[in-house]
Amino acid sequence: MWIEPCHGGVGSRTMRSMSDLPKTPAPAIPGEPERISVKTPIPGPRTEELRRRHGAVQDARTVHVYQDAKRSLGNYLVDVDGNVILDVYGHIACVPIGYNHPDLLAAWKGGRFDWCAGYRPALGIAPSPEWVDIVTGAMARIAPKGLPRLVTVTTGAEAVENAIKAAFVLLARRRRGGKGPTDADLADSMRNDQAMANGFKVISFQGSFHGRTLGALSLTRSKAIHKVDFPAFAWPTVPFPANRFPLAEHAESNRATEARSLEAAEAVFKANPDNVAAIIVEPIQGEGGDCHASHDFFRSLRKMARAHGAAFIADEVQTSGGSTGTFWAHEAWGLDDPPDIVTFSKKLQIGGYYCREELFPAEPLRIFNTFLGDPLRLAQLEVIVEIMERDRLIENARITGDFLVNSLEGLAARYPGVLSNARGRGTFAAVDARDPATQAKILEHLRLAGVEGGGSGTRSLRFRPANVFLPRHVAEAIGVLEDACKKVA
Amino acid sequence: MWIEPCHGGVGSRTMRSMSDLPKTPAPAIPGEPERISVKTPIPGPRTEELRRRHGAVQDARTVHVYQDAKRSLGNYLVDVDGNVILDVYGHIACVPIGYNHPDLLAAWKGGRFDWCAGYRPALGIAPSPEWVDIVTGAMARIAPKGLPRLVTVTTGAEAVENAIKAAFVLLARRRRGGKGPTDADLADSMRNDQAMANGFKVISFQGSFHGRTLGALSLTRSKAIHKVDFPAFAWPTVPFPANRFPLAEHAESNRATEARSLEAAEAVFKANPDNVAAIIVEPIQGEGGDCHASHDFFRSLRKMARAHGAAFIADEVQTSGGSTGTFWAHEAWGLDDPPDIVTFSKKLQIGGYYCREELFPAEPLRIFNTFLGDPLRLAQLEVIVEIMERDRLIENARITGDFLVNSLEGLAARYPGVLSNARGRGTFAAVDARDPATQAKILEHLRLAGVEGGGSGTRSLRFRPANVFLPRHVAEAIGVLEDACKKVA
Repeated sequence: MWIEPCHGGVGSRTMRSMSDLPKTPAPAIPGEPERISVKTPIPGPRTEELRRRHGAVQDARTVHVYQDAKRSLGNYLVDVDGNVILDVYGHIACVPIGYNHPDLLAAWKGGRFDWCAGYRPALGIAPSPEWVDIVTGAMARIAPKGLPRLVTVTTGAEAVENAIKAAFVLLARRRRGGKGPTDADLADSMRNDQAMANGFKVISFQGSFHGRTLGALSLTRSKAIHKVDFPAFAWPTVPFPANRFPLAEHAESNRATEARSLEAAEAVFKANPDNVAAIIVEPIQGEGGDCHASHDFFRSLRKMARAHGAAFIADEVQTSGGSTGTFWAHEAWGLDDPPDIVTFSKKLQIGGYYCREELFPAEPLRIFNTFLGDPLRLAQLEVIVEIMERDRLIENARITGDFLVNSLEGLAARYPGVLSNARGRGTFAAVDARDPATQAKILEHLRLAGVEGGGSGTRSLRFRPANVFLPRHVAEAIGVLEDACKKVA
Repeated sequence: MWIEPCHGGVGSRTMRSMSDLPKTPAPAIPGEPERISVKTPIPGPRTEELRRRHGAVQDARTVHVYQDAKRSLGNYLVDVDGNVILDVYGHIACVPIGYNHPDLLAAWKGGRFDWCAGYRPALGIAPSPEWVDIVTGAMARIAPKGLPRLVTVTTGAEAVENAIKAAFVLLARRRRGGKGPTDADLADSMRNDQAMANGFKVISFQGSFHGRTLGALSLTRSKAIHKVDFPAFAWPTVPFPANRFPLAEHAESNRATEARSLEAAEAVFKANPDNVAAIIVEPIQGEGGDCHASHDFFRSLRKMARAHGAAFIADEVQTSGGSTGTFWAHEAWGLDDPPDIVTFSKKLQIGGYYCREELFPAEPLRIFNTFLGDPLRLAQLEVIVEIMERDRLIENARITGDFLVNSLEGLAARYPGVLSNARGRGTFAAVDARDPATQAKILEHLRLAGVEGGGSGTRSLRFRPANVFLPRHVAEAIGVLEDACKKVA
């Protein structure tokens, strides 16, 4: 099976009248601004004043704008200069239901989170019953099929670090014929001198992003500035398919690039017999250029991992939470044999992973830390999930996303020297600019015109709006992007 | 200078009448339970029922009790079976002002955290002005002397990972004669094949705990079960001084063990010229056995790091937040030349570190991640700091801690076959049991009698109460511990 076209095909009908917009089941957010309103240059003078003050203590160079936290609503970020900005970036894909959703605030005001107010617990020592209710309730409801076990931590990097640790534990046990560590293994570990474990490897893909702690960073291969000057484990990497879009026009070359990636992966497995604990892959390479692969590709990869006894880890830190049109992006692959581990963070408010029973260590305390997440953020996630279910926000992401990708394709068709390779699943979408300089120019135009966007890889524009992003917001964003195209054409 | 005796010397006056208790400036928490109340075995039937339910999804084997989050108050943890438990462990040292401090709850109810209610931000992209107020206000007020720069992350492990990354960046720049990475360095990094960086090392001490992500775990040397089966960087380790207590009785042998540790550290520096980016040390080894060293020892270590051009990292994840009698444990060392980096987490609610200007990378985005902390927990920390200042809780920890350590010494004197090596700074205290089996028996007695405690290393009992722990709580805990001593004697 090839990538499901989650959009209506190649067209050029980007701008329509409001009555012509696709219908979605998601309600508008009461009180949400009607449109962008730009009052100053962005970043504006109050942002720059705050940046100076902030920059004396923290690194403030990366800040786009300082946000008026309480005035922001729905898809509109309000900055401290009073600019009302349409947000298609969502704090690097972390905003599931927009800003200050009235029902989330009502839950807050109504006391629903008060049990988390009075201290931050070590959840492995003395969690409270409300925590148990959430992990056996909402968290079990959203669990990927076939993965009954849940490990909560705090960030995506910690999710990946612990996921590969679980894979190492399983591989070590298998290598010992089903037994736990020997006394010699324990002694060696205290000297960082375990002959077997130090030979263990995890395969990742070129262009991937899996986090920035040293273990996770050894898997990350998107940008050198993330990695340079830091020691890394000598783990192998495989090229990710260099698919091009629209798919129909490039079917043959895409199949060939996917085949080459699979051959390279197979070669790495063969070159490292008994030492590959896991292969980790993002459903869409969300930082390294929004690279997609076909469902067939992922199914083949899953089979390959099974054949070589390696854990298959779907890193869904960025793709989870519904924006791709399914709660988990890997659902679309139609696997008979689910992934062994699926990681999450970002829209899910804390990090963690789901896994199969056999990836759950037999011994306690091997996958453990002090906080193991944060009940306050997970309690908020419970409400977020309820709102997503009630308002059919995943269906909304699918419908709105189709319209978004279709509109991007339309723009690419009309500005062929500027944009190309429109692609996406749900609202998790992207389009390539001509080159890095054009990417920068377009992002600057978006920013000044009141659209908060972000880059992916060296020349892609990435769309990571909240799941309350509606067709009318698509129309508004595409209008601004079209202006940018005219300018740089 | 030797370790300041922060207690009154060896005595045996463990139990006193209430009127004889030391006076502290800290007020009692209104409504706090007057004493322990045990109604069931601990863990009780409702905890075991919840453990079964919880254990179907998460690892519930490590849970001591399920906590009634809203009924817990001050130093007393109330569990789901209605047991009122005196907490001297504080969720592995994470509870700075006790449970549900009325003024923290008043701030919550009064809307002080409402700006954090409506979404979780990426703090490097669009923080809000309230964040800037906190980091330039309360966080600057508590900053270690000489360390103007602050990096916030989410956990202690991430704090350590990023601290050593900052040290690697600085070493790489020095090795290049002050220049940034070359194109060749960048290309090598994408293949995990940087000849220079892969030779970089960080020195840590045997018995230390620095976290469980693979970089931090390569530094952790407390227990093999944390490390076995996981690949580790081949970084060197040095013995931590094996000091014995009371100090006056062991002064000569303690000086000798400290001298040996320093010689070993010097030898490691010499064996790795130009490759040691940092040396990291806990002021007290809070997981690996509550090992202490003298102020002189740390001052010598700091000088040695300076001489070899390595960053000196004080890992204060567990010791920060006032319980040692100063906000930062390293304050007591009386350094002329401050540490280069001081990490924190636990009582400070989120992870992070303070550092010197030169440890702050010249290039943006090298020390970066999505969340970079959590404004909600930092906003709570701001209130916690205000309460600690107003109620003089650090002074309380000093006074109460003196009484605690003195009382532990008294017990050790009266039960010499059971307890030894009473030690501590402030309430960050410990005493050794005869052997691991005795440690386990005493911890079981404490648990059943309604005292929530924890072990450190293989045979120590660790005290990590909140900073609202008062002499009357010491008296109650010591009474229970004395019963345990009688039982196992």
